[in-house]
Amino acid sequence: MTLSSALLDHAVDQLATLPGIGRRTAMRLALELLRREPQEVARFTEAIRRMRDELRRCSRCCNISDEEQCAICRDPRRDAGLICVVEDIRDVIAIEATRQFNGLYHVLGGVISPMEGIGPDELNAAELFDRVRQESIAPNEARVKEVVLALGGTLEGDTTAFYLNRRLNEMGVLVTTIARGISVGSNLDQADEATLGRSIVDRKPYEQLMKR
Amino acid sequence: MTLSSALLDHAVDQLATLPGIGRRTAMRLALELLRREPQEVARFTEAIRRMRDELRRCSRCCNISDEEQCAICRDPRRDAGLICVVEDIRDVIAIEATRQFNGLYHVLGGVISPMEGIGPDELNAAELFDRVRQESIAPNEARVKEVVLALGGTLEGDTTAFYLNRRLNEMGVLVTTIARGISVGSNLDQADEATLGRSIVDRKPYEQLMKR
Repeated sequence: MTLSSALLDHAVDQLATLPGIGRRTAMRLALELLRREPQEVARFTEAIRRMRDELRRCSRCCNISDEEQCAICRDPRRDAGLICVVEDIRDVIAIEATRQFNGLYHVLGGVISPMEGIGPDELNAAELFDRVRQESIAPNEARVKEVVLALGGTLEGDTTAFYLNRRLNEMGVLVTTIARGISVGSNLDQADEATLGRSIVDRKPYEQLMKR
Repeated sequence: MTLSSALLDHAVDQLATLPGIGRRTAMRLALELLRREPQEVARFTEAIRRMRDELRRCSRCCNISDEEQCAICRDPRRDAGLICVVEDIRDVIAIEATRQFNGLYHVLGGVISPMEGIGPDELNAAELFDRVRQESIAPNEARVKEVVLALGGTLEGDTTAFYLNRRLNEMGVLVTTIARGISVGSNLDQADEATLGRSIVDRKPYEQLMKR
């Protein structure tokens, strides 16, 4: 599809580099942007450019951040003794949306995947170990007491959890993982065998459920 | 969904203003852009900004254009005596892709829609009439001999075609419309009644089909 305009052509090409955006959708987006006021489009492109140029990595948890440390790490109301390890920032957003976690995070930036050549060195794992080691000599309230592994239930997630657990155990910190089980609101016959099996093995006293 | 970064938040907000892009998709796109090199993202935003700031309207056919006249209008190999009237630039692209049309275009910028308050004055209709009028006193090869109405088969498209035909007829120019009928490669029972009815009324000699 070649257009009569190199400018439009080029913008469509660029929009079509985004994941899940084909050339037809890219064209629709370009025409929509063309209909807008120039200042409006300038706001759009500026927001993207500034995000890329000015966003940093939080020096503590490797999450993206506008400043030296991210807003979560800077928040004094959060429990610095509890670290939740996640794959990427989307997981942080998902967990924050539950309002059930009041600790800090550590963003790995991926999971161990020998197939894709991703080992611990390609992830922010060393940063996690340094952090646990340094903060274990910190004053009591800042000391890391527990690391929650909140990784996906895939082979890569399990491999990563296995590796992190072994290393963190050596440092004498409590390592936990998020519960796997039947989704809230779903029937047993919709669950896969592995999940259902896990939910039976990991059963817990009914009273404990009620106390929450 | 509020993120720990105002920069990311703002970029996601802007991406989510695009049609068909929800906040979840916008987040995925923002994270993908974050993964790219800053120069790469600059190329992306520059292409969009330049498109909006530098694209003009072709002074002849109202198509978008990088210059005073668009590439199609400037092409001397095209038949200036034949004008195809379309709703917007996507139709130009679609017709160009068929390689079956060698005339020029006229982009209306919409169709008449009393419901949405769009009348002929909101469209590039006056520009079309001026063009047909001016070019009918031009040297023979530039004179407009035929205007093809290539509008959608909707109520609004039909209303627009009705209006344009009446005005253009007064100017003594031949007005034609694209054929409606059964899609190539589809069965009769898949077509709606109106289309099937039209295809029977508009039947044509088999020999004529073969000559193409």
